[in-house]
Amino acid sequence: MTYCVGLQLDRGLVFLSDTRTNAGVDNISTYRKMHTWEVPGERTMMLMTAGNLATTQSVVSLLEERNLHPSDRDPTILSAPTMFQAARLVGQTLKDVIQQQRGGGPEAAAPTTFNATMIFGGQIKGGPTRLYMVYPEGNFVEAQRDTPFFQIGETKYGRPILVRAYDPDMDFARAIKLLMVSFDSTIRANLSVSTPLDLQVYETDSLKLGLTRRVEDTDADWRAVSDGWSDALRTAFDSLPDVTLDEGRD
Amino acid sequence: MTYCVGLQLDRGLVFLSDTRTNAGVDNISTYRKMHTWEVPGERTMMLMTAGNLATTQSVVSLLEERNLHPSDRDPTILSAPTMFQAARLVGQTLKDVIQQQRGGGPEAAAPTTFNATMIFGGQIKGGPTRLYMVYPEGNFVEAQRDTPFFQIGETKYGRPILVRAYDPDMDFARAIKLLMVSFDSTIRANLSVSTPLDLQVYETDSLKLGLTRRVEDTDADWRAVSDGWSDALRTAFDSLPDVTLDEGRD
Repeated sequence: MTYCVGLQLDRGLVFLSDTRTNAGVDNISTYRKMHTWEVPGERTMMLMTAGNLATTQSVVSLLEERNLHPSDRDPTILSAPTMFQAARLVGQTLKDVIQQQRGGGPEAAAPTTFNATMIFGGQIKGGPTRLYMVYPEGNFVEAQRDTPFFQIGETKYGRPILVRAYDPDMDFARAIKLLMVSFDSTIRANLSVSTPLDLQVYETDSLKLGLTRRVEDTDADWRAVSDGWSDALRTAFDSLPDVTLDEGRD
Repeated sequence: MTYCVGLQLDRGLVFLSDTRTNAGVDNISTYRKMHTWEVPGERTMMLMTAGNLATTQSVVSLLEERNLHPSDRDPTILSAPTMFQAARLVGQTLKDVIQQQRGGGPEAAAPTTFNATMIFGGQIKGGPTRLYMVYPEGNFVEAQRDTPFFQIGETKYGRPILVRAYDPDMDFARAIKLLMVSFDSTIRANLSVSTPLDLQVYETDSLKLGLTRRVEDTDADWRAVSDGWSDALRTAFDSLPDVTLDEGRD
């Protein structure tokens, strides 16, 4: 499994991803799921991946190979004129890889085995900062004011706090804290999501990568959030009024 | 979908279930998923159901018909000597109903369509209070000190608070508050879980049903928890230390 969240703020984007991949609980590895491209002063792009690791690695390799050997036939995300066109390229590449792996050869048990989902965001000079969720079918949706973040992978445990504490006006430090809380809830519940985490910040109009950090399990901020959140939750729970026991005999 | 939680405490059991059933988002109904049996002073049993409504209603009807017309061939949960034997009856009935509905006739799209899962608990005079999770295969597991509660249906959103705030020593009022918080997180995230809720308390060695309450959306306790939890969560979030922005430029 996987857990990745991309958050759109007034001042930019914050991405956080875990690094655990598994083929069964007895075959666990650490892989980076956060990929970035930048042409300082011109464009900055970030991609997080969930799903079949062979698929997501192929997609990233294809996108990078095309960047190294651009041609008219194969447009690249580094030459795309807008983030929308770049997202179309990511989507088309994802769709192509899945279709190619599906065609012929022995098939795995589940029909969705080759699928993957991605969160893609960034900015190209002259355009706004964009955040997209890219589906295995190659299509994609864009974050809006009403839906200002995307989650992929194991999304449920960490969603309640995102829904309640997100504020488009929050600063990066607060947004990172929010994502850490959401990841902590998920990691405690699901063995297939785990530290280290990869953090990436993008500040709108900077046109270069912002804060980049690998968050190990021993990271002081992570420990403060992870250890503090249990106590904070219990305090929050205590602060609620007691319920009445109508008809009860307690 | 459905959400039901059964909680084992030192002083007894607390059950909370929602009432929403759906066949697609355009076909929603309210059905009771909480079923109780009692012979005051002798035994008290509670059953919560998730899954195919035809299956769960059949199981409950069969259990009740047998209670009305007991025979040597068909033992009943009201004549079972122990909670373990009663749980075996529930499991066997569930397995029989699923197998019968599966055999012959037109099949629905998904192979698991007739499945259901149940939480069953209570006490029979002379024995301890027991809490079981019953699977569609007819087998079941019992709650222990390490795993003191069971969830069925849409379990993920409401799990983090249960894991963190549960305490076997808590009183019934606090346990009900905990379940309400867990349900609030779930109901806000998943349209297929909804009020009214059915609450049932059982106090160990009372051998009769305890507090029984239908919690409507307008219930004062429910409103206090639901409205208060967002603020309490945000306060908890604020109370965590800010993260540092190493390598950052915020």
